[in-house]
Amino acid sequence: MAAAPAREIVLVDCPDEVGLIHRITGVLGGRRLNIESNQEFVDTAAGHFFFRAEVQPVDGPVPSAAVEAELARVLPDGSRVRVRRAEPLPIVVCVTREPHCLGELLLLDAVGDLPGRIAAVVGNHDELRGLVERFGLPFHHVPHRDAAGRDLPREEHEAQLARVIDAHAPAYVVLARYMRVLTEGFVDRYPHRLVNIHHSFLPAFAGASPYRQAFARGVKVIGATAHFVTAELDAGPIIAQDVIHVDHTFTPERMAQAGRDVEKLVLAKAVRLVLEERVFLHGRRTVVFE
Amino acid sequence: MAAAPAREIVLVDCPDEVGLIHRITGVLGGRRLNIESNQEFVDTAAGHFFFRAEVQPVDGPVPSAAVEAELARVLPDGSRVRVRRAEPLPIVVCVTREPHCLGELLLLDAVGDLPGRIAAVVGNHDELRGLVERFGLPFHHVPHRDAAGRDLPREEHEAQLARVIDAHAPAYVVLARYMRVLTEGFVDRYPHRLVNIHHSFLPAFAGASPYRQAFARGVKVIGATAHFVTAELDAGPIIAQDVIHVDHTFTPERMAQAGRDVEKLVLAKAVRLVLEERVFLHGRRTVVFE
Amino acid sequence: MAAAPAREIVLVDCPDEVGLIHRITGVLGGRRLNIESNQEFVDTAAGHFFFRAEVQPVDGPVPSAAVEAELARVLPDGSRVRVRRAEPLPIVVCVTREPHCLGELLLLDAVGDLPGRIAAVVGNHDELRGLVERFGLPFHHVPHRDAAGRDLPREEHEAQLARVIDAHAPAYVVLARYMRVLTEGFVDRYPHRLVNIHHSFLPAFAGASPYRQAFARGVKVIGATAHFVTAELDAGPIIAQDVIHVDHTFTPERMAQAGRDVEKLVLAKAVRLVLEERVFLHGRRTVVFE
Amino acid sequence: MAAAPAREIVLVDCPDEVGLIHRITGVLGGRRLNIESNQEFVDTAAGHFFFRAEVQPVDGPVPSAAVEAELARVLPDGSRVRVRRAEPLPIVVCVTREPHCLGELLLLDAVGDLPGRIAAVVGNHDELRGLVERFGLPFHHVPHRDAAGRDLPREEHEAQLARVIDAHAPAYVVLARYMRVLTEGFVDRYPHRLVNIHHSFLPAFAGASPYRQAFARGVKVIGATAHFVTAELDAGPIIAQDVIHVDHTFTPERMAQAGRDVEKLVLAKAVRLVLEERVFLHGRRTVVFE
Repeated sequence: MAAAPAREIVLVDCPDEVGLIHRITGVLGGRRLNIESNQEFVDTAAGHFFFRAEVQPVDGPVPSAAVEAELARVLPDGSRVRVRRAEPLPIVVCVTREPHCLGELLLLDAVGDLPGRIAAVVGNHDELRGLVERFGLPFHHVPHRDAAGRDLPREEHEAQLARVIDAHAPAYVVLARYMRVLTEGFVDRYPHRLVNIHHSFLPAFAGASPYRQAFARGVKVIGATAHFVTAELDAGPIIAQDVIHVDHTFTPERMAQAGRDVEKLVLAKAVRLVLEERVFLHGRRTVVFE
Repeated sequence: MAAAPAREIVLVDCPDEVGLIHRITGVLGGRRLNIESNQEFVDTAAGHFFFRAEVQPVDGPVPSAAVEAELARVLPDGSRVRVRRAEPLPIVVCVTREPHCLGELLLLDAVGDLPGRIAAVVGNHDELRGLVERFGLPFHHVPHRDAAGRDLPREEHEAQLARVIDAHAPAYVVLARYMRVLTEGFVDRYPHRLVNIHHSFLPAFAGASPYRQAFARGVKVIGATAHFVTAELDAGPIIAQDVIHVDHTFTPERMAQAGRDVEKLVLAKAVRLVLEERVFLHGRRTVVFE
Repeated sequence: MAAAPAREIVLVDCPDEVGLIHRITGVLGGRRLNIESNQEFVDTAAGHFFFRAEVQPVDGPVPSAAVEAELARVLPDGSRVRVRRAEPLPIVVCVTREPHCLGELLLLDAVGDLPGRIAAVVGNHDELRGLVERFGLPFHHVPHRDAAGRDLPREEHEAQLARVIDAHAPAYVVLARYMRVLTEGFVDRYPHRLVNIHHSFLPAFAGASPYRQAFARGVKVIGATAHFVTAELDAGPIIAQDVIHVDHTFTPERMAQAGRDVEKLVLAKAVRLVLEERVFLHGRRTVVFE
Repeated sequence: MAAAPAREIVLVDCPDEVGLIHRITGVLGGRRLNIESNQEFVDTAAGHFFFRAEVQPVDGPVPSAAVEAELARVLPDGSRVRVRRAEPLPIVVCVTREPHCLGELLLLDAVGDLPGRIAAVVGNHDELRGLVERFGLPFHHVPHRDAAGRDLPREEHEAQLARVIDAHAPAYVVLARYMRVLTEGFVDRYPHRLVNIHHSFLPAFAGASPYRQAFARGVKVIGATAHFVTAELDAGPIIAQDVIHVDHTFTPERMAQAGRDVEKLVLAKAVRLVLEERVFLHGRRTVVFE
């Protein structure tokens, strides 16, 4: 008996009009693609429509490009349409020295709780090699200093980084406490494919040392924010956020420790969401179909 | 200039089949009902489909019954279809002596944060009359004892209660800490229209004195559950639940006090959900389109 | 049989030294004050000690001033010592037009869940008079405009406000969505006795229209902050904070509605904490013994 | 320069009396042990007192046994007193096949976020050997079946298990999804030293397949419970609990997946708490000084 053909993910966003769902479901039905789940959202203020469906081909595989073209024909100008196989995508994880976010991703990958797979880990320091190699995954050390200990020109370092990353053809690049600010040039290489974890509840405490800032301000709640990276530091569209309560007994160090638990969960959540194509960009915001 | 015709709520649940959304959106489009938001869910294990939309008539009011009939024609046998005006529905609130859940509903009603309106409050005790009358609402005292202090036969008391409630023709009857067990006969009068708040995280601590039970068990989290009332005590389909953390310093009394804050919020949430027709029954469970 | 004498609250904060708890408990034991609960905290970085106890006189009332003097004698220079009866304190609530925070406090007061009592409500608008008078409490309208509709000089309006407030001799003044910025002169009249609710998770979105800011930034969590008022806008020491999750379906209006539930709970929590003297100031931060 | 002597942890629980804190702090002060933090709790209903302090010897190490004896002399009959060095304690982790809780503990251990250390992992299946050995830790396979695939007598298997565990002299034995019910004999070997994670919010859904039970009941919140193991299944004193929200879209499988994130966090929290001696037993309940 032949296996069922793989499920496909259908993504549409376009200017809103009357009858869009009827037209889309008409195309899918015509192609004998059974809708197993679908979600849609209309931003009525902006007049924009977002749609995501998981569909099961009834009669055998259907060429994605043909479905895309057919959808495009019935949708308004300015539509973005994407149909892709629901299969595990590769990611590359960039790190510096802190192991907690990387460790969470490695574990989820190892136990099958990541809807994708880690193709490689790249570090500007070498400390985390051991942890990565324990999981049987390649670790690449791309130092930002030369043999003499002098900082490389930023562009030169990023060019090396990009070469290593691109060799793994990742769907997304995940910055798991990667502690270097990236140039606009690098960010532009991976449009909406760079996911970062910031260790605060943005927009509070953007920039450096957020736990010190949080301590000094005397907040009773701290958080973490996973976001797409854009040229402007810590200002990219937010994918996921969560918080935990703290009190006066927390030193900045203990805030940081407690924060690590939130950071790793929020980043893991964001990585799962993007790997399942559940996140649409919408200007400076995101539409997330959980 | 004429006002826009009122928005309509469209509710469908039926056995799942290929093409349901396409058929439904076809009927709505044909009637010139613009879909402003819609949600659907397929329980693939049970093979059942749920759909809720808010639609705006483009060319003026459309008769609900006609749309219902047209939808029924394109849907499978065993479908339930309902189309109704999106307008504030009346509720009757039943109470005994505790004011916190009632108070929350009265306040939300008074400040316009309830998508419906309290038509009346009925109490088997008279204590809460003052609170209700402060808000300019009718309070009916329907004692469960006769003038001599003897308990009335349960059916007799419930018959009086039902007369008072029915005079207000409520869409839903909300038990806001109403402390009497209801007979199957009474429950059957209001199928899926009786909403109760239980002061625990059901199914833990069903029955009496949940905070004493929770204290004795030494739990670190307590909760509240809003559910539809069925003949079986505390076993009806759950609409909303929430919890708060407690610790060893909480006596049963302080647990009860902390619990009151959760109870009132969970009940208020459930009342908002049913008033906006966001809750489908699905066997012993609910489908809630938040 | 004579009633037990009232419980007393003992508050100490002072430079840290070895043996402070031993000395304090020595004084309390010598006075036959049985410690029913106590909490202490040492900020080791700052070298400062905080202590709060609830004590029950064993042999009858003990003069607070005498206990204070005795404690001061055994404690380091720079100590602050306060002993006061554990009894409900009066508060005055200031409002503008929004009813939700006021309503929550009125209800808690009415049902006995506030460890204090609302002496009066003052509004710069008259809208909320009806709600307050329903609860049998005095409402004072102190308009910030003269009969001709011209804005009063800020100091003149605040002088009238202070007269009305002070006539009720409140322990704390609670700003329950009072929408006017206060002068330094007014703030200084009520040092650490002015509690405000800000409708965001400070320091994110300080200033006006936080929900519009939050919407524009695309956050996935919104919050509320109760804090002491200082001369610097929205920068006073934080007493309590909490958050709720939101998503892309929330308009600024719906964020504001959801936010109202958090605001009222956070403010109510802060008011309970200060009424029970559980909040110490510690520079720009607070020590909160929950 | 000599290093500062190690910090000590002081634990007392005894019948409540007036003046206990004064007596305890007198002994500690006399021994020149500077209190860096302390917490106490009086269960006034039960008349029992609990105390935990972290103290720093000022003049060099002080013999724990001597301090214990001195404390015992000033405390009531029936007191339990323990003074021990604040140093990382060894644990043994028992597993079956599920990796998520084990993985979390391994990672926390590897990155230094566990206030103790994993001495070894024991499994009744061999699946998790690879994961454990990646972290350079010993894995012992103690199968519950003999070479012919027949179940060993329960006592025989547990005797082998105990031998392997005891060889590592663990302070605590952590059941990280260990899927076998333990005999009373085994449980009695490790009084209050066996910590288990149950994958539900106990007492709801005790026993097998809690996520199936939760799904069938239609709950909107699921949880996890870490507790000491006693002879009665899933009824031991609770150390930590937490929950997450679910909705109608969650199948039992997805509930289980979401639950894994809570399980691992709740177990990690409980393990941290017991390793820092923050958990007192109090009948069927616990007193937890966080």
